[in-house]
Amino acid sequence: MGQVSNSGAGVRDYAGAMASTRPRGFASDNMAGASPEVIAAIAACNMGLALPYGNDELSQRLQRKVSDIFEREVSVFLVSTGSAANALSLATLTPPWGSVLSHVEAHINRDECGAPEFYTNGAKLVQLPGPQGKMDLAALKVQSRRMVGDVHSVQPSSVSISQATELGTLYSLEEIAAIGAVCREAGLGLHMDGARFANALAALGCSPAEMTWKAGVDVLSLGATKNGALNVDAVVLFKKELASELAFRRKRAGQLNSKMRFLAAQIEAYLDNDLWLRNARQANAMAKALWEGLKLIPGVKLDRAPEGNILFGRMSAKIVDGLLAQGFRFYYDRWEPGVVRLVTSFATEQADVEDLLAVVRAVAAQ
Amino acid sequence: MGQVSNSGAGVRDYAGAMASTRPRGFASDNMAGASPEVIAAIAACNMGLALPYGNDELSQRLQRKVSDIFEREVSVFLVSTGSAANALSLATLTPPWGSVLSHVEAHINRDECGAPEFYTNGAKLVQLPGPQGKMDLAALKVQSRRMVGDVHSVQPSSVSISQATELGTLYSLEEIAAIGAVCREAGLGLHMDGARFANALAALGCSPAEMTWKAGVDVLSLGATKNGALNVDAVVLFKKELASELAFRRKRAGQLNSKMRFLAAQIEAYLDNDLWLRNARQANAMAKALWEGLKLIPGVKLDRAPEGNILFGRMSAKIVDGLLAQGFRFYYDRWEPGVVRLVTSFATEQADVEDLLAVVRAVAAQ
Amino acid sequence: MGQVSNSGAGVRDYAGAMASTRPRGFASDNMAGASPEVIAAIAACNMGLALPYGNDELSQRLQRKVSDIFEREVSVFLVSTGSAANALSLATLTPPWGSVLSHVEAHINRDECGAPEFYTNGAKLVQLPGPQGKMDLAALKVQSRRMVGDVHSVQPSSVSISQATELGTLYSLEEIAAIGAVCREAGLGLHMDGARFANALAALGCSPAEMTWKAGVDVLSLGATKNGALNVDAVVLFKKELASELAFRRKRAGQLNSKMRFLAAQIEAYLDNDLWLRNARQANAMAKALWEGLKLIPGVKLDRAPEGNILFGRMSAKIVDGLLAQGFRFYYDRWEPGVVRLVTSFATEQADVEDLLAVVRAVAAQ
Amino acid sequence: MGQVSNSGAGVRDYAGAMASTRPRGFASDNMAGASPEVIAAIAACNMGLALPYGNDELSQRLQRKVSDIFEREVSVFLVSTGSAANALSLATLTPPWGSVLSHVEAHINRDECGAPEFYTNGAKLVQLPGPQGKMDLAALKVQSRRMVGDVHSVQPSSVSISQATELGTLYSLEEIAAIGAVCREAGLGLHMDGARFANALAALGCSPAEMTWKAGVDVLSLGATKNGALNVDAVVLFKKELASELAFRRKRAGQLNSKMRFLAAQIEAYLDNDLWLRNARQANAMAKALWEGLKLIPGVKLDRAPEGNILFGRMSAKIVDGLLAQGFRFYYDRWEPGVVRLVTSFATEQADVEDLLAVVRAVAAQ
Repeated sequence: MGQVSNSGAGVRDYAGAMASTRPRGFASDNMAGASPEVIAAIAACNMGLALPYGNDELSQRLQRKVSDIFEREVSVFLVSTGSAANALSLATLTPPWGSVLSHVEAHINRDECGAPEFYTNGAKLVQLPGPQGKMDLAALKVQSRRMVGDVHSVQPSSVSISQATELGTLYSLEEIAAIGAVCREAGLGLHMDGARFANALAALGCSPAEMTWKAGVDVLSLGATKNGALNVDAVVLFKKELASELAFRRKRAGQLNSKMRFLAAQIEAYLDNDLWLRNARQANAMAKALWEGLKLIPGVKLDRAPEGNILFGRMSAKIVDGLLAQGFRFYYDRWEPGVVRLVTSFATEQADVEDLLAVVRAVAAQ
Repeated sequence: MGQVSNSGAGVRDYAGAMASTRPRGFASDNMAGASPEVIAAIAACNMGLALPYGNDELSQRLQRKVSDIFEREVSVFLVSTGSAANALSLATLTPPWGSVLSHVEAHINRDECGAPEFYTNGAKLVQLPGPQGKMDLAALKVQSRRMVGDVHSVQPSSVSISQATELGTLYSLEEIAAIGAVCREAGLGLHMDGARFANALAALGCSPAEMTWKAGVDVLSLGATKNGALNVDAVVLFKKELASELAFRRKRAGQLNSKMRFLAAQIEAYLDNDLWLRNARQANAMAKALWEGLKLIPGVKLDRAPEGNILFGRMSAKIVDGLLAQGFRFYYDRWEPGVVRLVTSFATEQADVEDLLAVVRAVAAQ
Repeated sequence: MGQVSNSGAGVRDYAGAMASTRPRGFASDNMAGASPEVIAAIAACNMGLALPYGNDELSQRLQRKVSDIFEREVSVFLVSTGSAANALSLATLTPPWGSVLSHVEAHINRDECGAPEFYTNGAKLVQLPGPQGKMDLAALKVQSRRMVGDVHSVQPSSVSISQATELGTLYSLEEIAAIGAVCREAGLGLHMDGARFANALAALGCSPAEMTWKAGVDVLSLGATKNGALNVDAVVLFKKELASELAFRRKRAGQLNSKMRFLAAQIEAYLDNDLWLRNARQANAMAKALWEGLKLIPGVKLDRAPEGNILFGRMSAKIVDGLLAQGFRFYYDRWEPGVVRLVTSFATEQADVEDLLAVVRAVAAQ
Repeated sequence: MGQVSNSGAGVRDYAGAMASTRPRGFASDNMAGASPEVIAAIAACNMGLALPYGNDELSQRLQRKVSDIFEREVSVFLVSTGSAANALSLATLTPPWGSVLSHVEAHINRDECGAPEFYTNGAKLVQLPGPQGKMDLAALKVQSRRMVGDVHSVQPSSVSISQATELGTLYSLEEIAAIGAVCREAGLGLHMDGARFANALAALGCSPAEMTWKAGVDVLSLGATKNGALNVDAVVLFKKELASELAFRRKRAGQLNSKMRFLAAQIEAYLDNDLWLRNARQANAMAKALWEGLKLIPGVKLDRAPEGNILFGRMSAKIVDGLLAQGFRFYYDRWEPGVVRLVTSFATEQADVEDLLAVVRAVAAQ
């Protein structure tokens, strides 16, 4: 094996981007920094001693806060990345001889270098089709029963859905509930990858409870890093009986932070005063603004308005090259040749959108 | 399984400690917060967009900085905990059918809930004896050759030493070099668990290079969290050819932070202007001050002066109870009945020491 | 989970079959017993003491015999099942963060309950399309390069082809060589699942060397159990440098038999006097005879002549029911509704074929 | 790594032994072949077709037979080696974050190349002391409670005892029951490694039920290979609720034989007409005869009469060399310098004993 890259494939010229003082980014929401409120919370909690490993007051308080927000007694486990949150969740729901059913485009399938396989000790990820990043219910029904009880085959054990999806679409509450019903009937656990949970919540305008356990979700990866935190995501267990096992799995995975207060402070600030929703609304609005601007420009083809903060479409090579030349960063040619993905974040401003639109317009007009 | 506790066994009355406004802690250096310089660095790097996953400028700069400090081209991998740093390091050196040789008191043996076994996919940890937390060289020599080439037995593959040790002692440079020589001769990789690397460095007054690769160390877990950072430790590879494998293992373990700049900023601030050494010197000095004060008090029995920031001794039950009653937190009865461990940190001040000494003196005089 | 069945799904009424004194079977070649020569060899080697674990004379002799047959110095590892042979082979070629590319219908994907994931410690199995059970070369080329060097994705590490395939077809020598060339170019190891290796060899009329290492195969699972042995398959390594690792993996998997002579004797007898080829020719011929007879019967639809000992086709429900009623056992409705699979073995005789044809003809004529 | 050997360390001159037409062996009971009754049973069951994977009549019948013998409804899983039986059993009782408590000399600790770690996905094996290969009950009690509920530590989950032990001693029924009581109280599963189960049974003269579930054993590895079978051992589950999980684990480990009748036939013959007990009595008697003869010879020092079929003692180097020169094979210098182990089997005859005694006497007299 030669050079290993931490960048995703399809982002041309990362090296070039390094040279610019400031990348102009629509590559992912993780290019943004953190919300000032989150930084302030970290500084504020840095006073005196605290019990380690989540035994501190702030961490304990957070358990209650998240329970309140979700209108149910939950167990919250803070971890350092979304991949860890997903893999830990799935390991809790899936034995090594089990399978996880998810959409073929799911992050757990494509972008985690086998973290679910590692954490589950070798379960199988079964990939389901479905339009626009959402799993096909009929396919799920078939797979949820496949070879059940047959010792020659891995056993369907859990389902994982991304809300919002990797393609920027949303499951409606009814769609989640329908998936939840299949899971209950087949005895499968239901996991939600909520790396962009707040973006979905803001777009649907429902409650966190409605989008999760009321629709049948057992375990949630509650993303925060992409939407304003530094380096924390959470596993939220709606089945508290899974907590003991998950505690050992987290420690064993090197994911039990000693100075836990610095993770808890981030999540607390993230949830306080609706910061998470405000951030998500900004990201969603900027995606909408991009869409509104781009759809009018010749050489750009967009399917439909974005539901969250991710926009897919097709641009001519000329436009792509023009944007790259101006220092813009984004994924293209990764899904299909000609397909471009633009992601906004809480830090995206109207001016950033205008900048991009101006370049596209200029190149398109040449 | 009943209630799961994140606290270590032997810390009586954690719940009680929660009630106090501020625990007075000598339980571990991880009760401290972060150095102001580290918090400031986090805030300072929170400007604009940055490439994710370590492709940002700050992360790249850090590679060079650490290489300079270690006087050698190294590969640095930032992770969220010391357990992750250790387990990743060992997985890179040890196949599933291999064994890791370490001292029976090593953190990897006692306090990581099997993280090394998880990351190595089931290697065996062989525990070596030795006085004061340091492995016996003769025992190491025997084990380094045990059943080599015999298919019925796991194969000796790596050695892990803690510097400073879990008992607060230090390996001299000569001792490390002697272990390194055994490793080279037997073809084993040598890992150093440097959760308290700076404390050892400050105490020995040698260079980072002398304490590591010049003495035969292949991989270092460079601790930062216990000594002033929030939530970052590093794997430092002196064998760069291991970097590719480790990159995939890190990602797969959910340890590749997306907003890596916030980890890199911590380590940069930690190393800048000798902050790490200044912090370590303060912790070491406070341990010495505790020792100087305690050794004069009847009812307290100390073996010898602490080399780093950990102090072991024996106290009467009366004194232990008296300290607990005053809100002090520390481990006792964990190693042996009557044995007490006190740990200082960069945040420990002379007044904290005086406070504790005053209580001990008062109780002892009753 | 409720009742667990060791039978494959789709074999209706196994319980009923139990009641009959003798199932009439075309369900799989593993319904047959063992060749008399193999039984005799087991009895013959049961004399006196022998060194265990493969250090006996017979096992050593077998190494040389297999090397001679493959016209190359090879390492042979005997194991108890084909799943073990496959999983061990793949583990030797694939790191935990790697992927195995194989046809979607491959036994390793569908019928081993995740054995490859277990033995590889969590590698990912990537499923390739292709007509008639043979992988599409263009798809292989694309996947062999997918995300190489991208830390977010598992890394293509090995390719596994079944010869003969699970659908009863054969790769030509040219097709194998073409796959081998893709592997070499991309740096992937090539594994052949030869559960029905002899059937393919007999059908192609080539040498074992031509069908394996001369075409680029690195590791072969050499099946024997389905074609006349009791309970032994072999891993044949054409890259001897993999032998040391595989020896430890085999032991660790509980696959190192102590009384190895009883496995070696089976393989020796299997290879002696072309027994393996004679058995395979008989099975292949009976499949052909079935095809010749069935294709003339109305209500039966066969695509083309079988290449090995597996026959696929479509039968009316009336015929299927008629056969079941007469005690015949075979898979149906497992791949698609209406699709029937018939497998012959070395123990299948012309009379067995005639029996089945008679029933089909009778039912079809009703 | 250089040359890998399948022999155990300490058996000098295996190569030399190969040269002799027939090794004269007291190295292990696995040097023997199989009982004629077992060979005959294999030949006898080789008639016609049978359903695969244990769905055949013989396998079903065996379930009932073993249940009768153990006076309880049990689930029996046949596997190819004792290591597989042990590792599967432990995996069923121990989560990855659990620990297995066993004697430091246990086969699972010393001689299985980490098979338990592999099958359990990385559990930790905790080694207990105790005289003559039997675990110290006080140490067990302490370890059974160690760090329970502390997330930093692996959790005591199962206990494994060998009956007979690796040192040839036996647990009395009372001793097993005492261990069983500790397990029940602490909530741990109890596994018995019965590689030499029949030898213990014959020596104690008790019933299989008394030595297992009536004393608190949950899972038994029932050895057969060392005592007259070719290549089969069994997991016997006294807790039938573990059967479903074990079925998947067995398949996934490549341990589900397709032509299962050939394993079932061996165990049936092994149990029929008390063959297992007759074989064991012969082995035990020969060990006793060896002891009676050796204890009178100067230069040989034996501690006490053997309880099963293993004899430990000390012999002078001169005697060891003399035996080796005459083609005798046995372990020496493996436990301690000067310590010799002699193992008899069902195939050992009085003449073999006399042969060895004659050589020892002759050398001792020189």
